[in-house]
Amino acid sequence: MKTLRMAVVGYGNIGRYAVEAVQAAPDMELAGVIRRSAKLSPEEAKNLAGIEIVTDVGMLGQVDVALLCGPTRSIPETAPQYLTRGIHTVDSFDIHGEKLWQLRSTLDAIGKEHGSVAVVSAGWDPGSDSLLRALLLAMAPKGLTYTNFGPGMSMGHSVCAKSKPGVRDALSMTIPTGTGVHRRMVYVELEPGAELAQVAAAIKEDEYFAHDDTRVFAVPSIDELKDVGHGVLMERKGVSGSTHNQTFEFRMSINNPALTSQIMVSCARAAALRLAPGAYTMPEIAPMDMLPGDREMLVKTLV
Amino acid sequence: MKTLRMAVVGYGNIGRYAVEAVQAAPDMELAGVIRRSAKLSPEEAKNLAGIEIVTDVGMLGQVDVALLCGPTRSIPETAPQYLTRGIHTVDSFDIHGEKLWQLRSTLDAIGKEHGSVAVVSAGWDPGSDSLLRALLLAMAPKGLTYTNFGPGMSMGHSVCAKSKPGVRDALSMTIPTGTGVHRRMVYVELEPGAELAQVAAAIKEDEYFAHDDTRVFAVPSIDELKDVGHGVLMERKGVSGSTHNQTFEFRMSINNPALTSQIMVSCARAAALRLAPGAYTMPEIAPMDMLPGDREMLVKTLV
Repeated sequence: MKTLRMAVVGYGNIGRYAVEAVQAAPDMELAGVIRRSAKLSPEEAKNLAGIEIVTDVGMLGQVDVALLCGPTRSIPETAPQYLTRGIHTVDSFDIHGEKLWQLRSTLDAIGKEHGSVAVVSAGWDPGSDSLLRALLLAMAPKGLTYTNFGPGMSMGHSVCAKSKPGVRDALSMTIPTGTGVHRRMVYVELEPGAELAQVAAAIKEDEYFAHDDTRVFAVPSIDELKDVGHGVLMERKGVSGSTHNQTFEFRMSINNPALTSQIMVSCARAAALRLAPGAYTMPEIAPMDMLPGDREMLVKTLV
Repeated sequence: MKTLRMAVVGYGNIGRYAVEAVQAAPDMELAGVIRRSAKLSPEEAKNLAGIEIVTDVGMLGQVDVALLCGPTRSIPETAPQYLTRGIHTVDSFDIHGEKLWQLRSTLDAIGKEHGSVAVVSAGWDPGSDSLLRALLLAMAPKGLTYTNFGPGMSMGHSVCAKSKPGVRDALSMTIPTGTGVHRRMVYVELEPGAELAQVAAAIKEDEYFAHDDTRVFAVPSIDELKDVGHGVLMERKGVSGSTHNQTFEFRMSINNPALTSQIMVSCARAAALRLAPGAYTMPEIAPMDMLPGDREMLVKTLV
């Protein structure tokens, strides 16, 4: 079994868990962590003891896959830097629709030119949820799928709420109310002198929140509310052939960054060992290609 | 969009639903139904009005995919007849483990030689459940998965019970009792003079039932108990990276032959349009390859 040499790019929320997931993989070794600055805080220095920290992948020797753990907005610029060097990339770009398709198209061309593979949006939604939605469509092509998120923190909504004047820190919880409809419970730590009513109005009129039932509460400390647990309930009721009322339900309760980084690591395996050059989203990848072990063993024990 | 020409081989439980699933697919047309005899019962004649019924695929003109809807034991002999003619096959071979691997290996070699694709065990277990088990392993590589079946009829167990002396007809219900353990509730219609105690003993000592809690009941009519509804509850609790207690649950309640044949039809699309010659089980296929529609639309709306 070939040992894959992995680089973790960025050491934030996802990067920290990605290091753990690489270290737990039987067929991978961590070449190192790539950051803009190799200077570490005391806590980071403790967590990364014995791990190579560099500012450029060229300093890590041969690398098979770069796990891009920086923010979503950084991915379109970061991924090509690796793909053009023939290093496969996996990201968890978390915007659906047009922007995702654009990213996939751009990286597809770059990968094909340089013999490298990009797995785009390898997280849980987009990601494993997308793969499941595709599978459920194959099982019951007509009908409705509802994806219900939470309860759990939404990073995007939290950052948006925090950006409002008078807000020192914020946390937006996504609460599922069924049929894919969500309530936003927004907790804010106010600056001295800021008024909750004004802050709440600013949050509610933002495009991020305007379409959902949004409730805003002042709390003394956001830090004390933080919990990276999250969840999904996906429901489909549909038609197989001409037979109605086929029902499906998928539920999970998970640590969000731990699951995201584990999925990235599993997709890295497909990128390095199975996929032809180009870019892929998760429903475009066979799940068995994400697993270690030989095909005979996997077919005999898993299928 | 290319219209795929489909043949349905066998017109039993699965074949009947396969005809409906092909007719419901936007990108397929039914070339015809292949049977050992083209003679039809009055009911069959009514259901198959306007459909070509033949005894050999050569009588149907060009055919892209043959859906093999005969019994599992017939598949190893039937599939090569089509693959050697360059016609892709999809079956729902329902035995796990060694025999499945043997079939996949044999058909893989034949497919590669003749430029055709075989999708093996395209049902729900083995099948879509297998694909899910692989995905859950990619999401949480360490831990336990339990697949709980039912309540629903087990064809294999029913046939076994029916084969015992003194049994005119039988139905074995699979009842999930949790953690992948099942109770077998067996209903038998006795021949005149047969004794329930003896019949029950014969059933319970058969290898099919010997390892499960099996209860046998005499009923006046098996026909009045028949319902092709079935269900699954798959549960996994495991570890992503080094984070424990990640929990996942998949549940479905479905018409068994309708789901099986729909999955076969969806896999036929992957066989005809996406996969390289050879044989595949479902976890070896990307779910998006099972769907109609162009990639851009699918990525934008589904991922």
